[in-house]
Parts: sequence; structure tokens; C-alpha cells
Amino acid sequence: MRISRKPTGAKFFELFTEIGANIGASVEVLREFMRAPAERRPELAARMHELEHAGDEATHAIIEHLDRSFVTPFDREDIYRLAARLDDVVDHMDAAVDLATLYRVGELPRGVDAQVDLLCRAARLTAEAMPHLAEPQGLTAYWVEVNELENEADQVYRRLLSELFNGRFDALEVMKLKDVVEELEAAADAFEHVADAVHSIAVKES
Amino acid sequence: MRISRKPTGAKFFELFTEIGANIGASVEVLREFMRAPAERRPELAARMHELEHAGDEATHAIIEHLDRSFVTPFDREDIYRLAARLDDVVDHMDAAVDLATLYRVGELPRGVDAQVDLLCRAARLTAEAMPHLAEPQGLTAYWVEVNELENEADQVYRRLLSELFNGRFDALEVMKLKDVVEELEAAADAFEHVADAVHSIAVKES
Amino acid sequence: MRISRKPTGAKFFELFTEIGANIGASVEVLREFMRAPAERRPELAARMHELEHAGDEATHAIIEHLDRSFVTPFDREDIYRLAARLDDVVDHMDAAVDLATLYRVGELPRGVDAQVDLLCRAARLTAEAMPHLAEPQGLTAYWVEVNELENEADQVYRRLLSELFNGRFDALEVMKLKDVVEELEAAADAFEHVADAVHSIAVKES
Repeated sequence: MRISRKPTGAKFFELFTEIGANIGASVEVLREFMRAPAERRPELAARMHELEHAGDEATHAIIEHLDRSFVTPFDREDIYRLAARLDDVVDHMDAAVDLATLYRVGELPRGVDAQVDLLCRAARLTAEAMPHLAEPQGLTAYWVEVNELENEADQVYRRLLSELFNGRFDALEVMKLKDVVEELEAAADAFEHVADAVHSIAVKES
Repeated sequence: MRISRKPTGAKFFELFTEIGANIGASVEVLREFMRAPAERRPELAARMHELEHAGDEATHAIIEHLDRSFVTPFDREDIYRLAARLDDVVDHMDAAVDLATLYRVGELPRGVDAQVDLLCRAARLTAEAMPHLAEPQGLTAYWVEVNELENEADQVYRRLLSELFNGRFDALEVMKLKDVVEELEAAADAFEHVADAVHSIAVKES
Repeated sequence: MRISRKPTGAKFFELFTEIGANIGASVEVLREFMRAPAERRPELAARMHELEHAGDEATHAIIEHLDRSFVTPFDREDIYRLAARLDDVVDHMDAAVDLATLYRVGELPRGVDAQVDLLCRAARLTAEAMPHLAEPQGLTAYWVEVNELENEADQVYRRLLSELFNGRFDALEVMKLKDVVEELEAAADAFEHVADAVHSIAVKES
């Protein structure tokens, strides 16, 4: 479909699809990390870091391809922005995992499971949307759903914050756990910013 | 005035005016909340949440109208960006109120009054500017004043932070209050981002 | 070089060069501040604040010149965005210095030196790039290096966070120091956003 419509964009769509799949893999490592015993954390954090690096490589490939292309399927700045926003998603998941490891936090509060579930759903929607970028007008449902997930994530995040302050954790542990859940919340926001970048491409194309 | 110049934009200007009025109503609830005894907080937080929801509806109406319009008064992405930045303002005020309620914080430090006063002034300027969007070059004074208010808000915010650390509050209470005043500071920043979006429209129109 | 190619832009390039030099001066004050005994902090914070104010003036001069110019060397919104991102850099350095003074923090942890070193390197690259804005395609190395510095800054920042939690500081002191190092990290991010704004101009020009 996309090749017939936008032959010049095939390489971009391929790279975005690859980045979508990479986000899907990252969120699985995140889920495993959050359930793993402390001794497995460094290994899973290293695995996440590899995925973050692979995402960086694909992002740079997009930017280099952009610099070399005379014709692009969308405005150059929109391609650039979408690549940057996708990069943010894995950056925040990597930061969450990295901080939890560096801080040697104890068991994570229960609410983190709900937060990670929402990230998994947003990741799946995003990975499924990327191969259809050539027809962005068809991605309205994706954009609406990711925005709804982000609203849900906000609620989960605030309940989780109040769980942190329920007296079970001392002040230093609250600070550490708060840094971790804030990065997860930033990842949820980042998925919304990706969807907004896609929506803004669709608006221009319509 | 705007109808004669930009008949196609009437619906957009109407919706932006509605959102401006909604921000004005939200900031009044915020002010009441900050002075209210703890037992009234859940009721006022619910009222704020309704306003936040009404703002969401108007934002979606703008985006849907954008998707259906062949001709728009400004670039599509600028309308979209302005709508998104206006949405942020109420989101941050809602978050402040929600966190103060969830955390069951004690009495708020005095400096919060000054912070809320500045938000009220920025809200009034913003609500007054929205009906004049059709002639954005006339909004220079609005843009300059909101930027000045944001500079003032920065100063108030930093003094407030040092008030939090003056020894009156324990570490957990400082963390909770800090989350609340950070959301208020983010609301002040959001008003500046709204003004910047208006300014960037004016720059393109000139 | 730039005058022959873009006579209309000479004033813009001059102002951006001035802002680059101002950032260079600001980072030197930052370095001195971080090494200074507590009694010298207010004086150095005042000096930083003057530089922040000088940067504001140059930013406003750019915006006013933009409002008065019929022809601009790049898209208006790109000039505006670059000016805004440069402004952020000094804002965050000023905030770091201001908070450290207001909070009367004790001696800063060792890791702050590494953070400030990276800011000095990013400032030098940025100051050197500004006089070459007329030929933005030649600034690829600048953009790549600033992005690499930001990655390094992320690592330094996270190690610094875990240093804060090593038991040497009580919870309130950790919160204060965290606010300071977060502003320094935001300054490192801001240098990357400046480089991204330059890169996005280069992409359009190519």
C-alpha cells in the first residue's frame, strides 16, 4: 500500500516500523524488570540499555536518510519530530530501569504494575500504527486511544504517588521510588507526544 | 470584526473564547480551594475536574473542526498547538488541586497565595485575549504582560521553595507541598506557552 | 561569508553570536560559583542574574527585529525557536545558582564538577557555532558533539543522583541538592535543544 503511494518514503516507513518493534521489545524488558528479584536487575537494565542504543541507531538512520533525501513523504520537520518523540519513549523507560538499579530500591509498590500495563498497551498501539504511517488519516483511532491511555495513566500515577506517601516508606525511599515512577509517567506522556506528532502529520495530509 | 475578516474562522474563535472563559472559571476554583478548610477540598477538586473535562471537550471540538475544515484562519499546526497549550493550563491547575487532596496536605504555606494571584492575572489576560485572536498583531501587550507575569511567578516560586525548607515542615510534607507548588508553577509556565503560541501566529500573520 | 550570502540576516547573526558569547560568560560564573565558599555565593548569583538579564535583552532584540523584518534568513518560527532555546540555557544555570544560594546548601557533591565541565564544553561548542549560522549545513559536527555531550551528561547526572542517596545527606538536604543538579541537567538538555533547533534549520536549508 505505502509503496504504491509513496515510493520515496519506503525507507522511512521501514525505519519507523523497526523503531515501533524496538519499543515493543523495550516494554517487555520493563515488565520483566519490575517483577524481577533485585539480583536480576543489572542484567535486565543492561538489556534495556542495548534496546535504547538500537533505537538511537535507527533514529540516526532516519536523520541521515532525511539529510540525503531530496523528496520526503512528509515535511522534513515532521519526520524529524516523530523520530525524536519515539526516541523519548525508550529513553524514559531506560531511565526508570537505570534509576531503580542505581538506587537499589526495595520492592516496588503495587501501583507500578498498573502503570507498566498501560505502557504495554500504548506500546502495542504504537508498534501497530507505525507500518501504516503512509496513510496517517487512517490512524485516528490510534491517536484517540493513546490519548485515552494517557488520561488513565495520569490517574494511576497520582494514586501511586499517594500510595508512596502512605507511611510505609521513609523519606529517602519515597524520593527514590518517586524518581522511578516519574520516569514511567514521562514514558506515558511520551507515547502521547508520538501520537500527537502522527496526528499533526495526518492533519497536514488531509 | 473577526467575522468580516475571517468568516471561515468564526467557529474556531468562538471555541477559543469558550476555553478562555473556562480557564477563568478554573482559576477561581483554584483560589477558593487554596483558602478552603480541608473538608471542602474534595468537593472543590471535583468541581475543578468538571472544568478540566469541559476544557477537554472544547479542545476536541477544535481538533474535530480542524479535521473537517478545508480553510482555516491560521496554519493548522498553529491552531492545534494553541489548543494543546491552553489545555495544559487547566491540566496543571487540576493536578495541583488533585494532589493537595490526595496527599491530604496540611495548611498551605503563605507564598501559595501570591502564586495563585499571579495565575489569576494571567488567566484574566488570556481570557481577554482569546476573543481577539482574529487580529493577533494587536495582542503584543498581552504577550509581553504574560511573559512578565511568568518572570514574577518564577521569583515567587523560588521564594516559596525556600519557605518550604525553613524547618517548619518535615521531609515528607515538604515533598507533598513541593508537588503542589510545582504544578502551580507549571500552570504559570503554561500561560507563557499559550502566549508564545499566540505570538508565533502573530509573527506569521505580519 | 554570511554577509555575502544573506545580507538581510546580518543583524540576526550578530545577535545570536552575542547570545553565544553571553552563554560562555555565564558558564564561567557557574563554574566559579560551584567552587566558591558559601559567603561568595550571593555575589556570584547576582553576577549570573545580570548575565541572564543581558541574555533576555538580546532575545527580545531578536524578536523585535523579527517583527520589523520583511525578509528573514530562515523561517521566522525557526529564528524564534532558536532564540527561545538559547534563552532556556542561561535560565537553567541561573536557577541552579539561585536555588543553591536560597537553600543555603552545604558543600556540593563531587559529581557536580563533572556536570559543570560538560556544560562548559557544550557552551564552547555553542558559542563557536553561532557565528556560522549563515551556513548551517556546516554545523553537523557541532550538532553531533552536543548530542554526545548530552548523553554523557545523562550518565553523570544519574551517578550524581545515586551519590546524593549514599547516606551522607539527610532527606531535606538531598531534596535541595537534587533541585540544584536537576537544573544543571536541564541546562545540558537545553544545549541539546539549541543544537536541535540549529539542525532543523540546516535540514530545511539543504
